[in-house]
Amino acid sequence: MRFFVVVLWLFSAPSFAADPLSSWTDGDAKRSIVSFVRSATTPGGQAFVEPADRVAVFDYDGTLAVEAPVYGQVAFCAWRLERLPPAPRAEALLRKVRALAAERLYELSDEDTVELWALGLAGPSAEQVQGDARIWLQDELHPRFGEPRTKLVYQPMLELIRWLKSRGFKVFMVTGSTVDFARAISEDLGVPRENVIGSSLRRRWSDERPSEVARESEFEGLTDKDRKVLEIDRRIGRRPLMAFGNSDGDLAMLAYATAGPRPGFGALVRHDDGLREYEYDRGSPVGALARGLELAPARGWKVISMKSDWKRLFRP
Amino acid sequence: MRFFVVVLWLFSAPSFAADPLSSWTDGDAKRSIVSFVRSATTPGGQAFVEPADRVAVFDYDGTLAVEAPVYGQVAFCAWRLERLPPAPRAEALLRKVRALAAERLYELSDEDTVELWALGLAGPSAEQVQGDARIWLQDELHPRFGEPRTKLVYQPMLELIRWLKSRGFKVFMVTGSTVDFARAISEDLGVPRENVIGSSLRRRWSDERPSEVARESEFEGLTDKDRKVLEIDRRIGRRPLMAFGNSDGDLAMLAYATAGPRPGFGALVRHDDGLREYEYDRGSPVGALARGLELAPARGWKVISMKSDWKRLFRP
Repeated sequence: MRFFVVVLWLFSAPSFAADPLSSWTDGDAKRSIVSFVRSATTPGGQAFVEPADRVAVFDYDGTLAVEAPVYGQVAFCAWRLERLPPAPRAEALLRKVRALAAERLYELSDEDTVELWALGLAGPSAEQVQGDARIWLQDELHPRFGEPRTKLVYQPMLELIRWLKSRGFKVFMVTGSTVDFARAISEDLGVPRENVIGSSLRRRWSDERPSEVARESEFEGLTDKDRKVLEIDRRIGRRPLMAFGNSDGDLAMLAYATAGPRPGFGALVRHDDGLREYEYDRGSPVGALARGLELAPARGWKVISMKSDWKRLFRP
Repeated sequence: MRFFVVVLWLFSAPSFAADPLSSWTDGDAKRSIVSFVRSATTPGGQAFVEPADRVAVFDYDGTLAVEAPVYGQVAFCAWRLERLPPAPRAEALLRKVRALAAERLYELSDEDTVELWALGLAGPSAEQVQGDARIWLQDELHPRFGEPRTKLVYQPMLELIRWLKSRGFKVFMVTGSTVDFARAISEDLGVPRENVIGSSLRRRWSDERPSEVARESEFEGLTDKDRKVLEIDRRIGRRPLMAFGNSDGDLAMLAYATAGPRPGFGALVRHDDGLREYEYDRGSPVGALARGLELAPARGWKVISMKSDWKRLFRP
């Protein structure tokens, strides 16, 4: 038998005693999150959930980061397309993009938006596309806030992700944006790259160039609405225990998370803070929550009011 | 400042001192694995790799488990199809399946095999399909070994997976079998369900039946050869640091893992042990490694001889 004496000095770092969700006001949203997580992670309780089953899924645009006036991926693709070598296929689209101010890119038709993604996210390797996305995320300033997009992420959600992970949760991002764009920021938000589920461009690999996986200019379809559920099932293989979204595109994911035999938790971020962010909870080019607000009470989904539930919005 | 004194009695469990790869003989395969892993995980060394980048991928059939005389998924689908309610679409196929002994199911044409998967893996929910697969894995005895498939997994690889995880690796299974079939056994092998990458049937979900994701009788394509690389990139978003396979269908994955700017490790299990398992390294209905054996020396891939590198084959 071996015998050890270990002496530990634990300095009382603020994280020990402090509230892990300190950017949340003490309202119903915070209380219900804390209560659900404590019940699910306290051994011996009736609502205890094994660590393997503690899966939390988060939408990205509008749930973890500012999505107005246009989705990050749209703005990034317009920026990148200007910097890629000229291509005949891109000419007509570039004319349309230049005719709109950056903050009006949502006026592009759906077809043009998909074409913008197909052209703006293509490249010879993941490294190149994600490297460009990181430059854009850090350098391009948001038209209203004058800050890079890496700053315009919601501090209350960063605290929640960190806390869930400390409680044994596996945290996934489930987004309509492509995995390449989302992975350029996910680890900065606490979500490992392999936990990003999203749309993608068609890929190509051959043994002649074995070190790189190329992205072709062909969009494979939007991971939104019921396709978020299908991808969660295909990728994770478990019903999420908690799901967070902010638009009607996230309702399928919430419905799936909260419809199983075991209690689940669903919540929707409501953009109702025109002063500090935007107020478009009833509808806008970037997101609508009309149906979500209608369904929430009957489904037991929590509505997180940006205005009253969050003390601080952006990461410091 | 807080002050704690913690007294720990650590019983000298065998796992402390023992060799984590005790089922491997002390040959070149084991030595090269141990040396690569130690270099990659020793801080300060030139070959040190950050934990986030420590990704190891394993093929399933023939790499982690016995695949002869027919892939587990084929045998399972034939078994399940007999037990599902009769369906007109299945009649002709069932006649062909019944005409072959279970161990000759590889004689089915590619089209019939795909149809067998499409019909044999369909179902109203993941729970049902995976539940049936678990029954089959535990109850059906292998025609030669008289053991359930859960026993016919390679102990040396189980030790390797466990050791890699203890060294901070994230371990993924990348298989041509469907994720549903593979997830029925993956956690038993140490691979979390969300780390299974594989083929799949088309899925369906609607808010009318929100708790379940149905699998339709439509196979979406085989995750093999270059498609293993494309799925690794789409799903994990990192080049693997280590890749293990056993057939020419795994060479693309090995080429990708070992072609990057950073050293990678690739190895192929060689089925050369007719006495304890099977001898078909040069070719068989379930797998061929002819091209792999030819390429291995120039590519620096290790060949793991079942006969001489593994002391013990199956889990105890």
